[in-house]
Amino acid sequence: MKQTGYKYSIGVDIGGTNVTVALVDMKGVIVNKIKYSANVLEKEELFVHHVAVQLSEIVDGVPINSVQGIGVGSAGLIDHGKGEIKCSPNMYKKKFPFVSMLKKKIRRNNLSKLPIFLENDANVAAWGAYQLEVPAAVNDVVCVTMGTGVGGGIIIDGEIYHGSNGLAGEIGHVTINTEGPRCNCGSNGCLEKYIGAGAIVERTVEEIKKGRKTKITGLVKGKLNKITPKIIAEAARKNDSLANNIWEETGEYLGIALAGIINVLNPEVVVFSGGVSRAGNLFLEPMKRVIRKRSFVSKRKPINYIISKLGDDLGVVGAALLVRQIKKGSDLNI
Amino acid sequence: MKQTGYKYSIGVDIGGTNVTVALVDMKGVIVNKIKYSANVLEKEELFVHHVAVQLSEIVDGVPINSVQGIGVGSAGLIDHGKGEIKCSPNMYKKKFPFVSMLKKKIRRNNLSKLPIFLENDANVAAWGAYQLEVPAAVNDVVCVTMGTGVGGGIIIDGEIYHGSNGLAGEIGHVTINTEGPRCNCGSNGCLEKYIGAGAIVERTVEEIKKGRKTKITGLVKGKLNKITPKIIAEAARKNDSLANNIWEETGEYLGIALAGIINVLNPEVVVFSGGVSRAGNLFLEPMKRVIRKRSFVSKRKPINYIISKLGDDLGVVGAALLVRQIKKGSDLNI
Repeated sequence: MKQTGYKYSIGVDIGGTNVTVALVDMKGVIVNKIKYSANVLEKEELFVHHVAVQLSEIVDGVPINSVQGIGVGSAGLIDHGKGEIKCSPNMYKKKFPFVSMLKKKIRRNNLSKLPIFLENDANVAAWGAYQLEVPAAVNDVVCVTMGTGVGGGIIIDGEIYHGSNGLAGEIGHVTINTEGPRCNCGSNGCLEKYIGAGAIVERTVEEIKKGRKTKITGLVKGKLNKITPKIIAEAARKNDSLANNIWEETGEYLGIALAGIINVLNPEVVVFSGGVSRAGNLFLEPMKRVIRKRSFVSKRKPINYIISKLGDDLGVVGAALLVRQIKKGSDLNI
Repeated sequence: MKQTGYKYSIGVDIGGTNVTVALVDMKGVIVNKIKYSANVLEKEELFVHHVAVQLSEIVDGVPINSVQGIGVGSAGLIDHGKGEIKCSPNMYKKKFPFVSMLKKKIRRNNLSKLPIFLENDANVAAWGAYQLEVPAAVNDVVCVTMGTGVGGGIIIDGEIYHGSNGLAGEIGHVTINTEGPRCNCGSNGCLEKYIGAGAIVERTVEEIKKGRKTKITGLVKGKLNKITPKIIAEAARKNDSLANNIWEETGEYLGIALAGIINVLNPEVVVFSGGVSRAGNLFLEPMKRVIRKRSFVSKRKPINYIISKLGDDLGVVGAALLVRQIKKGSDLNI
């Protein structure tokens, strides 16, 4: 990590339901963290006001000249260059100049001089993992974020790759079956429809309803609406046959999409983050098998597959790290 | 294009059956060209010797200080950093240090001071199209090479993207149907098995053998082994129903793979080169329809699809342009 005179940066992680604000030290360790529920119905103005209040709170008592800046990760489509949230599926439907509004809110306080960076959550996850969890010599990384949605961030030559209008990395919407189920994106058979948390649970519930015996039923005390990927992973680790099949399929589906991405991008490392990724080897092993078969590129040099250990903190830590590592000139002093 | 004191560079295009050597001016125009048949059975030593002889021939009478360097494009797996042909499907099975061998061959003549650059043919095609055929402001380009094989080159931020071990861009081996036919790469259902020249011809012949009436039969005077993608395109332009169906399917298959690539890479421009690409709108229109359906990324900003007009010369011109445009420090003065 580069040596600077700074001791901290601030990360803001804007999710579909919660906002997390954290003071993070130069090693990526969280010093102080505030998590609050984002009222999705409140106006953009009020939403930004709340972020500004928590920012002041998190630096309370910290000398401001020890803070390098503010990094923000948000769900949705982001224009990182303009600092805008263009569209967020669970939040704001229209364009929303987050960075300039936040700048306005903090213009009279001690935070006003700090640069602010905004990226989408998948890019932030990729950046955080790249900075903290990937071997030092590696500069080409693909990160797959596995949760309700399936996203992706791409690091090329040590920089976040945005594509021509900031939309690169939509790994969840690669077609893996042209005859597959309809997706919200307008296509069908997208990876997300097979390995998103909802899809994994749905496939499991279907099998149980068909009468298949499984330890999962006991783990949720018969309440099928309580089934989560975490519970399916718990059952699989107890050698439950249905649960193992579900993870096996999940790994195979992911392998089909990743084999294509590896053939095109030839990355050194693939990182997996998000709740679903915690199933780890349950999906990694079948995934690797499919990739070995489907990607001759992967055969010529082994790829390093890493499950992020930062868990829920990856978003806020990755956001904070945007400030320290991003190239000069990207500073959004609007 | 950058202004330099040079007037020319030399391009070498090593294909499966022919080698082309050309003197190319600063605008990418061929001044002089030699094409000869590569004897695939000859030893590497002799093969390099022939290249060296043709290089001397092509610069005969040209002041050597007006030549900036030599760019070489070759089929197969290339280590551009080391200047090695690692493996070429139709030529050399083992590693072959092309650049250092060529340097040795020319060390006593006037070419000895010229830098030599080596890239695979798909990267060269992408580079040539990027330099000469893509709007000036565009820096993110995907190039699909459509011939017997289907390959790809990727330009990111104005540079050839190689991936972690030089294998990026293998678009022909993206799975478009997990149940599809076996491919030489070890996988099955690869794009190349659907839109490679052989696959296009095979589908056509099958339909004719089933008894389908088509103008194609007349165009080849009943000799089905004379059918080529060019002839199928000719028939389609005469409103032949089978030929139109074949190009429709070809476009749709390509659209499935490209939609995924566009969702991941978000390029501004996609260029198509190679013999099959000359069918132009016959496959472009159905391809665009599938991409509009399958790639929400493509919906947010129209993508510019370009058929390269350089035809067979793209290889040798793109190779020559490697010399002028590649960043400093990549010079292989071994």
